[in-house]
Amino acid sequence: MNNTPHAPVTVIGLGLMGQALAGAFLKAGHPTTVWNRTPAKAAPLVAAGARSAPTLGDALAASPLTIVCLTDYDAVYELLGANGVEPDPTTPIDTTPIDTTPIDTTPIDTTLINLTSGSAGQAREAAEWAERRGARYLDGAIMAIPSGIGTAEAVILHSGPEQVFADHASTLGALGTITHLGADPGLASLYDVAGLAMMWSVLNAWLQGTALLAKAGVDAATYAPFARQIAAGVADWLPGYAEQIDKGSFPAEVAALETDARAMEHLIEESEAMGVNAELPRLIKAMADRAIAAGHGGEQYPVLIEEFGKP
Amino acid sequence: MNNTPHAPVTVIGLGLMGQALAGAFLKAGHPTTVWNRTPAKAAPLVAAGARSAPTLGDALAASPLTIVCLTDYDAVYELLGANGVEPDPTTPIDTTPIDTTPIDTTPIDTTLINLTSGSAGQAREAAEWAERRGARYLDGAIMAIPSGIGTAEAVILHSGPEQVFADHASTLGALGTITHLGADPGLASLYDVAGLAMMWSVLNAWLQGTALLAKAGVDAATYAPFARQIAAGVADWLPGYAEQIDKGSFPAEVAALETDARAMEHLIEESEAMGVNAELPRLIKAMADRAIAAGHGGEQYPVLIEEFGKP
Repeated sequence: MNNTPHAPVTVIGLGLMGQALAGAFLKAGHPTTVWNRTPAKAAPLVAAGARSAPTLGDALAASPLTIVCLTDYDAVYELLGANGVEPDPTTPIDTTPIDTTPIDTTPIDTTLINLTSGSAGQAREAAEWAERRGARYLDGAIMAIPSGIGTAEAVILHSGPEQVFADHASTLGALGTITHLGADPGLASLYDVAGLAMMWSVLNAWLQGTALLAKAGVDAATYAPFARQIAAGVADWLPGYAEQIDKGSFPAEVAALETDARAMEHLIEESEAMGVNAELPRLIKAMADRAIAAGHGGEQYPVLIEEFGKP
Repeated sequence: MNNTPHAPVTVIGLGLMGQALAGAFLKAGHPTTVWNRTPAKAAPLVAAGARSAPTLGDALAASPLTIVCLTDYDAVYELLGANGVEPDPTTPIDTTPIDTTPIDTTPIDTTLINLTSGSAGQAREAAEWAERRGARYLDGAIMAIPSGIGTAEAVILHSGPEQVFADHASTLGALGTITHLGADPGLASLYDVAGLAMMWSVLNAWLQGTALLAKAGVDAATYAPFARQIAAGVADWLPGYAEQIDKGSFPAEVAALETDARAMEHLIEESEAMGVNAELPRLIKAMADRAIAAGHGGEQYPVLIEEFGKP
């Protein structure tokens, strides 16, 4: 019923990202209600056709779907009220100072999609909080910058009840490439940080290579296509390597870890010889050395999952 | 002249990789001469049509192009003779014990392509050594496993005089996707270790994410396509980011480094909270923190090149 091409939608929080989200809904033709603690931020959106809700309660009542995009989870509770119906003394958020805004104890009869950045634990707590308040809830993470919102390149991750996602997928699709990861509300946050770890790692490896090659007079533009090709090529191995992890069996079909370790030593030596930072090479080798010390030298690289899975 | 479809070629060193190289030349129709210290290793290749040279001198004389693929550079000198014409007292390899094999002081009138694994420094020394011995020389690096040789997936890097590469590109093309990187003979080795750093970094970031998601009950096969997409997507940014490095200007078009650093803190906290190894996240943040401390918090990620370029 809500999953219609032009279902109404509310956006709470009009920072740069919230403005981009509301703008994308407007462009896609959704009647869009906006609310921000500082109402002035709504002006450009109102000029583009949005309705600025006079109160937060009005904003929540205006649409079957409300997107929340605030600075952090504390801001969400501060705004929407931490203390919903009867507090559950076993959950950590019950120790949050009780908020005194008018809607504090009011049931929230809408679907909330919280795109505020936070941890998996915070997302799970927020899902419990929403349940106590009577709201349907998805937690989400935005893998995009504001200017990318509304294009296919903006990846927006959602986790929580699949039916809630299905009910609003058509509306959410206005924001970019939307994905539902599973019922655990913490998944969006976990995929988000895992994806960021990949992003920084690709960038760092590229910087390591760029720094090495710079010492031999090669400019960054000359090296970049090579680094790009390697990263994309290795990315293609991941699904196959994942099978080894799920089976818990790591036959050395490509190369044994101890062969990798010898080449890692070359990388360290070369970095030191060329006068570039060798911390990343040393960490790479340290992880492999631990797995070899644990008896996995004859197995293949993904056997390192055992080291990565330890605190 | 040598760059004909069926130019003769010699392969010295018949380990697993050497055998694969010779096999690929044979399959492509090149008259192939092989030599190995232990001649028995030549038998399968002889059965496939190769000629086993009775002596190393005969092997070198048999073809205008000789591929050398041995365990390490010491093995190359031991076999081909470290002490060529008059030693140059300023180069390090002159301190190598003088080899006493018959061809020790014989000029080598062929093109040598040395695909033995080693450092950029070793490659440059070997190029000087080859010049003293009268040989044309390219240093190379194989980014493939033996079973991939002869397919387009085998990337083989070459560095040294461009004309030497051009003279033999047609023959070398039998081995896979061949590339000439530049006149500095050390470049093949540097690109090789840089590419390996990228390979291990993509794998480690994927393992970090896989370990994190495993704690939430997500199997590796479910997570892998996401990791693959991120890695391939970030790879596409590298040419654009390289322009920032070459210009030495890092405007925060996408995000400022200090915004990244806050998300890095989330990654560390999440890794610790989920009980997985946090060394990679901590190294990622440590590099960024140093750049921020140096005043680059408002600039974009590639500004980290300055930290990677320091010893």
